[in-house]
Amino acid sequence: MFITFEGLDGSGKTTQVKELTSALRAQGHQVLLTREPGGTEIGDRIREILQDKANTAMTAQAELLLFCASRAQIVAEVIRPHLDGGGIVICDRFADSTIAYQGYGRGIELDLLYAIIRFATGGLQPDLTLYLDITPEEGIARRQQASLFGEEFSRIDQMALEFHRRVQQGYLALMAAEPGRWLRIDAAQPSAAVQADIRAALTAQAGMAF
Amino acid sequence: MFITFEGLDGSGKTTQVKELTSALRAQGHQVLLTREPGGTEIGDRIREILQDKANTAMTAQAELLLFCASRAQIVAEVIRPHLDGGGIVICDRFADSTIAYQGYGRGIELDLLYAIIRFATGGLQPDLTLYLDITPEEGIARRQQASLFGEEFSRIDQMALEFHRRVQQGYLALMAAEPGRWLRIDAAQPSAAVQADIRAALTAQAGMAF
Repeated sequence: MFITFEGLDGSGKTTQVKELTSALRAQGHQVLLTREPGGTEIGDRIREILQDKANTAMTAQAELLLFCASRAQIVAEVIRPHLDGGGIVICDRFADSTIAYQGYGRGIELDLLYAIIRFATGGLQPDLTLYLDITPEEGIARRQQASLFGEEFSRIDQMALEFHRRVQQGYLALMAAEPGRWLRIDAAQPSAAVQADIRAALTAQAGMAF
Repeated sequence: MFITFEGLDGSGKTTQVKELTSALRAQGHQVLLTREPGGTEIGDRIREILQDKANTAMTAQAELLLFCASRAQIVAEVIRPHLDGGGIVICDRFADSTIAYQGYGRGIELDLLYAIIRFATGGLQPDLTLYLDITPEEGIARRQQASLFGEEFSRIDQMALEFHRRVQQGYLALMAAEPGRWLRIDAAQPSAAVQADIRAALTAQAGMAF
């Protein structure tokens, strides 16, 4: 069972995947929680390059290719073997993020992104993808700790908002194209209610008991 | 003017590009000689990952994506600015190597490779590509310092030969598809004769004086 979490920045994915992973492990499941980029020795070295603030000259193309190189490595080295062994893999973001952020958000040609992702993952697709749904305004507000929507709303805030609106549109398009894979969770609720909805959805869709 | 050198391993490219670069610089040309992977700060860090012998788990996909990430960086950061400034860029291998080695040699789908390369290079194409032509047998023999084709011809040697035959077929297909870009040089000759042919070809095709 390969489960991915998607959503705008600030939607609370990281908190929710950790709680879910703990709950599934308490039930005796073999759960692998992965992060990208990284999660393998090679991926961690790629992550260092991506996150090094000195690398201001990095092109959007190099960034995407590095990200997908790390993904190729974690799929082959970690995710597939764990799935083949009957375990559960949970990813905090996976290929859909690339489509939503790089494709819809930054305008990189979708066909090209799909081709690169397919190459990197060998066609591996999540069985279920949970979309933690918040509005772009909520996402930005949460990330910037509610300080953003005060008296001033700067040009950069406006750009961030427009970017996240495009990302949201991307997610909506992805969900519409594959309704059977996606589960939409209202992430504007308090954290405990979000977790309860996630578990209820996994029970209904995948028969998981908590 | 963007000139690339291609050919099988052992065809003598590295020696020839160095000599050509020196000769063009002696004529007062601004010549940039690049290597891949590497050639930029980010590319050099990618090169370290690619060449680290400890990384035995690296998948073919991750390797190709890392290579193309380094290429995206050198094209944007080094090659395009140098060309825009009126200089000559000489590359010891470029995108054609990816098509020949990964596509024809390793069997990765060509359309996918072209898409990834186009993404990485932004569509930059060499003005001229010199193909240093040797047979696969010669290439292997030179690399293994003539010790290979003695009494025993092992299974691994046979595999290497078959691989390099596919790569050669790839180069021949690329040349047939774009005859105006490629110049074929007989690289089985002594090194000085190869260099003389390269210069003569560049004089005839690009008006370069030596």
